[in-house]
Amino acid sequence: MAFAREVHVRSYPDAAVGPEHFEVVEVPVPTPAEGEVLVRNTWTSVDPGMRLRLRPHAPEGYFTAFELGRPMDGVITLGEVVESRAEGFAVGDTVWHPFGWRTHAVVPAGVELMNGAATLRRLDVTDVEPQWYLGPLGAMGLTAWSGLAVVDALKGGETLWVSAAAGAVGSLVAQIGVLLGHRVLASAGTDAKVAWLRDEVGVAGAFNHRTQPLAPTLRELAPEGIDVYFDNVGGDHLEAALDAMAMHGRIALCGSVSDYEGEAVGPRNIFLATAKHLTLQGFRGSLHIGVMEEMQRRLGGWLRSGELVQRETVYSGLEQAPRAMADMLAGRTVGKTLVRLA
Amino acid sequence: MAFAREVHVRSYPDAAVGPEHFEVVEVPVPTPAEGEVLVRNTWTSVDPGMRLRLRPHAPEGYFTAFELGRPMDGVITLGEVVESRAEGFAVGDTVWHPFGWRTHAVVPAGVELMNGAATLRRLDVTDVEPQWYLGPLGAMGLTAWSGLAVVDALKGGETLWVSAAAGAVGSLVAQIGVLLGHRVLASAGTDAKVAWLRDEVGVAGAFNHRTQPLAPTLRELAPEGIDVYFDNVGGDHLEAALDAMAMHGRIALCGSVSDYEGEAVGPRNIFLATAKHLTLQGFRGSLHIGVMEEMQRRLGGWLRSGELVQRETVYSGLEQAPRAMADMLAGRTVGKTLVRLA
Repeated sequence: MAFAREVHVRSYPDAAVGPEHFEVVEVPVPTPAEGEVLVRNTWTSVDPGMRLRLRPHAPEGYFTAFELGRPMDGVITLGEVVESRAEGFAVGDTVWHPFGWRTHAVVPAGVELMNGAATLRRLDVTDVEPQWYLGPLGAMGLTAWSGLAVVDALKGGETLWVSAAAGAVGSLVAQIGVLLGHRVLASAGTDAKVAWLRDEVGVAGAFNHRTQPLAPTLRELAPEGIDVYFDNVGGDHLEAALDAMAMHGRIALCGSVSDYEGEAVGPRNIFLATAKHLTLQGFRGSLHIGVMEEMQRRLGGWLRSGELVQRETVYSGLEQAPRAMADMLAGRTVGKTLVRLA
Repeated sequence: MAFAREVHVRSYPDAAVGPEHFEVVEVPVPTPAEGEVLVRNTWTSVDPGMRLRLRPHAPEGYFTAFELGRPMDGVITLGEVVESRAEGFAVGDTVWHPFGWRTHAVVPAGVELMNGAATLRRLDVTDVEPQWYLGPLGAMGLTAWSGLAVVDALKGGETLWVSAAAGAVGSLVAQIGVLLGHRVLASAGTDAKVAWLRDEVGVAGAFNHRTQPLAPTLRELAPEGIDVYFDNVGGDHLEAALDAMAMHGRIALCGSVSDYEGEAVGPRNIFLATAKHLTLQGFRGSLHIGVMEEMQRRLGGWLRSGELVQRETVYSGLEQAPRAMADMLAGRTVGKTLVRLA
């Protein structure tokens, strides 16, 4: 009998997540029923938002919480079909589905699995790296592109600040911002990340938020104010942005990773939104599936031409997935965090 | 020699504002130069936002701070022209200008005084109360109407929560909401205010936020979630709204009076904006002068037909202005707070 392995949540972390909150469990390789395929997973995703699901209750309107002692559903993953009982899928197909953090998954075809974003889908991977469908050509690209779209920032020509700008989404936003003709300001948490943003991406201003104070740095980099802030951090970053925004500025609320592992801190200067007629627009890429095709066309073009560079931090083997998540949340990874399973 | 009186700021309050922070000063009646008029003020406005200007520095993007030991400029006021050296203005004209909290003012004609909102303007008051131009036909009406407009809530048919719903702006939003066909929920700080909202305005649900807990009350009144929240309070109200909003809900950030007299508290659950794809739209009526005419036509029609009722709390005599402001901020006034000067 063949065995598969899957990661279960053992307990919900109170503060920083670590490998002790997970366990790897050996189970029989599952058998597909009629209309299903068996997938051997090859790449699985590690996203900051998963931290919000390591709780008894995930935030309302968000993906559901991970259950204790169960495989982790709703994590986008790539794999190869090894047995097919579903029309339209053949052995050897590369597919995309939401049953990650395990070596094998049985997936039904033609069913909307989560938010419409995560149906079993065959990928015709030709001239790109397959794992880019977990990054710039998948959820990360969709989040970056739709976030700029919802605050009307696809036309370029403005001052755009992006935080966590060496992260999975931030590194795309920073590069797309430059390609669209924005004056991009970028912050990150290590000097190496800042050097990459400044020297390789070519942003107008980059700084390390751990060594440079937010408020005076932003005042110096954007004396006329910030038009668009793409917020991946929340907390002190959002508060600094409210201070630094220009009149009629727009803030894309993508995530607030600074809040995920501890006590959330709200922006005490939210009144500045009233004073300066600011828009704060919350959004999730998965609610914007409609722009997926446009995003893949634009980002795919830039990736193929080399104008857009995908950065990633890869861990090998399912056992490394919990460590990958802990490293990512602590800011020790760069770009998209991935686990290679096969 | 004739004397005028004006209120000066004596010191900035650390917490609750009181009459001790002001003084009434007697000065000679000023003389108009060429292009100016002398106005004897009749009604002057008392607004929550004035509290933000009783500081060394007002919030960026907002009206400027009141200077110590100086008359308070930028407070909308009605008066009667008693001497004119400006073309187009005659003795006896009723006018609107931003030099309130004083008995007499010299005002230049044809000059944009503050934000375009506050130029000397003649009012042809016919079949309405003149002081309504400091309320529903002036800045309060503009704030209510433009706030609903910026969150696309003029079409009706949704669940709309308005806080401070017996205040100058809130009492208009609650009534306009009902007239537009929204399902209006309204909160206020006394049982008498709640009774007015429920019995006279006819909102779908009204509650006293001092005696009923926000979160469970909102859950009960809006089990499907709130589509639009008109925020006049900030703090715990904004946090409760983020919890209670429906997917794709919109929040009009009009003011956060709960923050004005003490330590501001930011919404710790701002991530729900991301999870539920919420829009938080800050705005000030004075930035929407363009809809003034439409607003005056619509609200004027409802006022004349009696469908919209203007509530006001009137104090008599300039000496009462500081007390009026303290009472308003403590929630002891209803509707628009005004001082009658003559």
